[in-house]
Amino acid sequence: MHCPDQKGIIADVTQFIHKNNGNIIYIDQYVDRIHKSFFMRVVIESEFKKTSFEDFKDSFNLEIGELYTLRCSFYLAENIPNMAIFVSKYDHCLYDILSQQRSGKLVCKIPFILSNHKDLNLIAKQFNVPFYFIPVEKDSKAEAEQKQLELLKKYNVDCIVLARYMQIVSNRLLDSYPNRIINIHHSFLPAFPGAKPYHSAFNRGVKIIGATSHYVTEELDAGPIIEQDIVRVSHEHEVNDFILKGQDLERIVLLRALKQHCDRKIMVYNNKTVIFN
Amino acid sequence: MHCPDQKGIIADVTQFIHKNNGNIIYIDQYVDRIHKSFFMRVVIESEFKKTSFEDFKDSFNLEIGELYTLRCSFYLAENIPNMAIFVSKYDHCLYDILSQQRSGKLVCKIPFILSNHKDLNLIAKQFNVPFYFIPVEKDSKAEAEQKQLELLKKYNVDCIVLARYMQIVSNRLLDSYPNRIINIHHSFLPAFPGAKPYHSAFNRGVKIIGATSHYVTEELDAGPIIEQDIVRVSHEHEVNDFILKGQDLERIVLLRALKQHCDRKIMVYNNKTVIFN
Amino acid sequence: MHCPDQKGIIADVTQFIHKNNGNIIYIDQYVDRIHKSFFMRVVIESEFKKTSFEDFKDSFNLEIGELYTLRCSFYLAENIPNMAIFVSKYDHCLYDILSQQRSGKLVCKIPFILSNHKDLNLIAKQFNVPFYFIPVEKDSKAEAEQKQLELLKKYNVDCIVLARYMQIVSNRLLDSYPNRIINIHHSFLPAFPGAKPYHSAFNRGVKIIGATSHYVTEELDAGPIIEQDIVRVSHEHEVNDFILKGQDLERIVLLRALKQHCDRKIMVYNNKTVIFN
Amino acid sequence: MHCPDQKGIIADVTQFIHKNNGNIIYIDQYVDRIHKSFFMRVVIESEFKKTSFEDFKDSFNLEIGELYTLRCSFYLAENIPNMAIFVSKYDHCLYDILSQQRSGKLVCKIPFILSNHKDLNLIAKQFNVPFYFIPVEKDSKAEAEQKQLELLKKYNVDCIVLARYMQIVSNRLLDSYPNRIINIHHSFLPAFPGAKPYHSAFNRGVKIIGATSHYVTEELDAGPIIEQDIVRVSHEHEVNDFILKGQDLERIVLLRALKQHCDRKIMVYNNKTVIFN
Repeated sequence: MHCPDQKGIIADVTQFIHKNNGNIIYIDQYVDRIHKSFFMRVVIESEFKKTSFEDFKDSFNLEIGELYTLRCSFYLAENIPNMAIFVSKYDHCLYDILSQQRSGKLVCKIPFILSNHKDLNLIAKQFNVPFYFIPVEKDSKAEAEQKQLELLKKYNVDCIVLARYMQIVSNRLLDSYPNRIINIHHSFLPAFPGAKPYHSAFNRGVKIIGATSHYVTEELDAGPIIEQDIVRVSHEHEVNDFILKGQDLERIVLLRALKQHCDRKIMVYNNKTVIFN
Repeated sequence: MHCPDQKGIIADVTQFIHKNNGNIIYIDQYVDRIHKSFFMRVVIESEFKKTSFEDFKDSFNLEIGELYTLRCSFYLAENIPNMAIFVSKYDHCLYDILSQQRSGKLVCKIPFILSNHKDLNLIAKQFNVPFYFIPVEKDSKAEAEQKQLELLKKYNVDCIVLARYMQIVSNRLLDSYPNRIINIHHSFLPAFPGAKPYHSAFNRGVKIIGATSHYVTEELDAGPIIEQDIVRVSHEHEVNDFILKGQDLERIVLLRALKQHCDRKIMVYNNKTVIFN
Repeated sequence: MHCPDQKGIIADVTQFIHKNNGNIIYIDQYVDRIHKSFFMRVVIESEFKKTSFEDFKDSFNLEIGELYTLRCSFYLAENIPNMAIFVSKYDHCLYDILSQQRSGKLVCKIPFILSNHKDLNLIAKQFNVPFYFIPVEKDSKAEAEQKQLELLKKYNVDCIVLARYMQIVSNRLLDSYPNRIINIHHSFLPAFPGAKPYHSAFNRGVKIIGATSHYVTEELDAGPIIEQDIVRVSHEHEVNDFILKGQDLERIVLLRALKQHCDRKIMVYNNKTVIFN
Repeated sequence: MHCPDQKGIIADVTQFIHKNNGNIIYIDQYVDRIHKSFFMRVVIESEFKKTSFEDFKDSFNLEIGELYTLRCSFYLAENIPNMAIFVSKYDHCLYDILSQQRSGKLVCKIPFILSNHKDLNLIAKQFNVPFYFIPVEKDSKAEAEQKQLELLKKYNVDCIVLARYMQIVSNRLLDSYPNRIINIHHSFLPAFPGAKPYHSAFNRGVKIIGATSHYVTEELDAGPIIEQDIVRVSHEHEVNDFILKGQDLERIVLLRALKQHCDRKIMVYNNKTVIFN
């Protein structure tokens, strides 16, 4: 939930939950003192069935929400996200996402894999996930996009991960999935946005390279950052070493971001992320 | 504050503060689910003068404290800790503590430096801090300890930092300063407790060395850990390289621990630390 | 190659290679000044066919090897290691090894997966690798070990990775594969050897947990360390969080160790590793 | 030394040293395969007095240097660099440089501290180092620069460290000290060059901030990078937290760079650094 910062919110919210037989098992809040905004994430245990979950939401919005002009999202733990994977030719992130989901460490459903190349169909088969090949050519972009939207609708997709999908996502897609398309960029943003960041990093002679996972927005590689990490390089490493070390980083950084997103720990605000732990 | 975990604590505490014209500018809590213990740190702004601070404490203990069998420590921001420094011959931690305190980044008073050697008197002079030389010999331990206690009392010391003080602290001192004596140990505890950890690390062929800051307890190097960090080493590094790299780590780790302690962010519990950020 | 440190080795070796039409594309050396031992790794390009590779080795040993009592291993780049995988029930390391090998980032052959449980057969099938189920019970240990040795011989295995294989490896196996069995231990060795290290780390209240990959020797978790890494934890993390964070570390650390081993960058000496980069 | 990559260099150089009674105690080389350049750093023990050091250099240049069009710098271990410190108002880097030099960990002489503000005179006094106050105003830049150059000449300065000196260094200074002026920039370059990088990093919502030490060149914050490091931040940190965490990083990164420079481990090439370890 978030709202303008006001006195008494925590007291009122916790009291409401308390009164409604909820047991708070996690609560964390954050106040942006500059913009005077209040953010809170609460996890509660309760014994309501689905009907009373609706009642709970309604009375919360009535009693608390209106009072504080508070905006709140409610999730039942049993409803896990339905996440589509977009890829091109690189397999390292795809392998990691599928393995971790299969191991139960990334808690989501994966309805399908979509690619503008056929190369990774084999891995989709290995993991028994539907694979859709939708080529994207200069003059077929609108058509490809239309097919993508239909698939996303058909499978009732909640969010999309661009696991090294080497295409720019259209505005129609962005509008349908605001703050719900997650990308992995292979540099330490805002350094080296755009194409070939490892080459640029090599040419600049940096001593550290990075990877950044972020929500996709209209401006290229400028969306809210979710997670970043780095690895050391030295003069001994050539571009190809940068790429190899970087790919190891990409999969780790992307997975961490996906886990936080799927566990509903991220709130987007002002082109930044508030991430509860 | 901490107490057995119970429903309604947060609501009651925040409401109490709210009612008493306090404005919560920081609140964080932690529940140890295994031991069913509740911990909370709250920072509030208020306009009471010293008398009403006493009133606030009294009525909090009366209204909230007894209800929840809650134990709470209260601090006024203007009362900063009074921290004595014990050293032997190494200067790296001492330089860092004095510089950072002088820069205003470590918020405490430093009434004196005490040492069992004369070597670092020069640095004490440089920074204009009283220096006491109290040698510790086998047959003068009790006497030395007595002098230490007198100094600590005279200067009204709140806490002690052992900034590479190469002597074991006596039980009398420990009893007077429970969870208020902070040590830096030059290994990644619990690996390599006791003497010469860098030599042991070198002999074992580790690829990473560490430093650990902890509260001192009766058992050697087994007290509650506050902060740890590590640095990579390789086969190319000799014992002396371990020592040099390690000393850089020691001063960083110790300073981080001291800052958290002086900012009153640490609670000790069950031989562990709960550290609010 | 390694030998007692003597003047003139580098000059003679490089001159020999030079004379024999080899082009040095990598050379690195390390001198252990305490034990006065010399280590060197050289990568050369040459145009000899298989016969002249033998000639090269022979004349090197004759001209240089004897002069310096030097021991040298020779590898042709095209001969990649044949590495068997032993697992129990955990899948995270197995997935990573198979994915990275399939992607071409871990350069080795994987002739089979062996387990004392049937759980991971599915993953073996997914990646189309033979799976052998060899249960290990108290009274069938010798028999199980015999079967293992036969398999290793049949498949002409060069080295073994224990990818969270929860059994102690027998001396017969160790003798057949000296410094060629690689284990991943889920702690920052030498802290917390043996069983349940995450539980021990949690109970000690550490602020950092680690993983260690090492060659297996007779003494439990005391073999030459190849690679270690760490991740931060806090009071907020329960044992289960330690395990989840740790498993992410285990797979990364193990993979790095395997890559270095398969690329023949590791020399074992004095229960330590010399790792060229 | 460096030169175009050619066969036989290592053999010839090591043989030359061997013949001239030098004992190689460190040797490391690096080949830039793209530009076909060869770099090598050698440390030798020998018993020549000053005259024969000159002889050694001459005959090396004659026998080896010309053959390979090799450029080589020779240093006697006893000649340590003479390094001037330029500061403005921040004291954290200055304290660290002075402490570490005094402790013997940063091996250099410090002839004077120069500042465009009077604030840090006190620290200079504390450490008994001459302090020169040279204000830099818009219309007195040329004059200030002239004074700086005179001081540098008078004290026979080898290299300069800009320890958070908030002024742009003139071209005349740069020309006199090519690759010998070391700066610390408070961001992870090439992200956030120029002024107020912590504010920019905060506004961008990064999850990691950094510091970069580099040689100063004409283009602002674009010179050869020596050392970089990073620290994690989160949404909870305000600009002021970025600054505090960053300052801790700045001093560490700058010190590491200075140590490598003073130990003559850095070669600059192609706007990059080759750093031997």
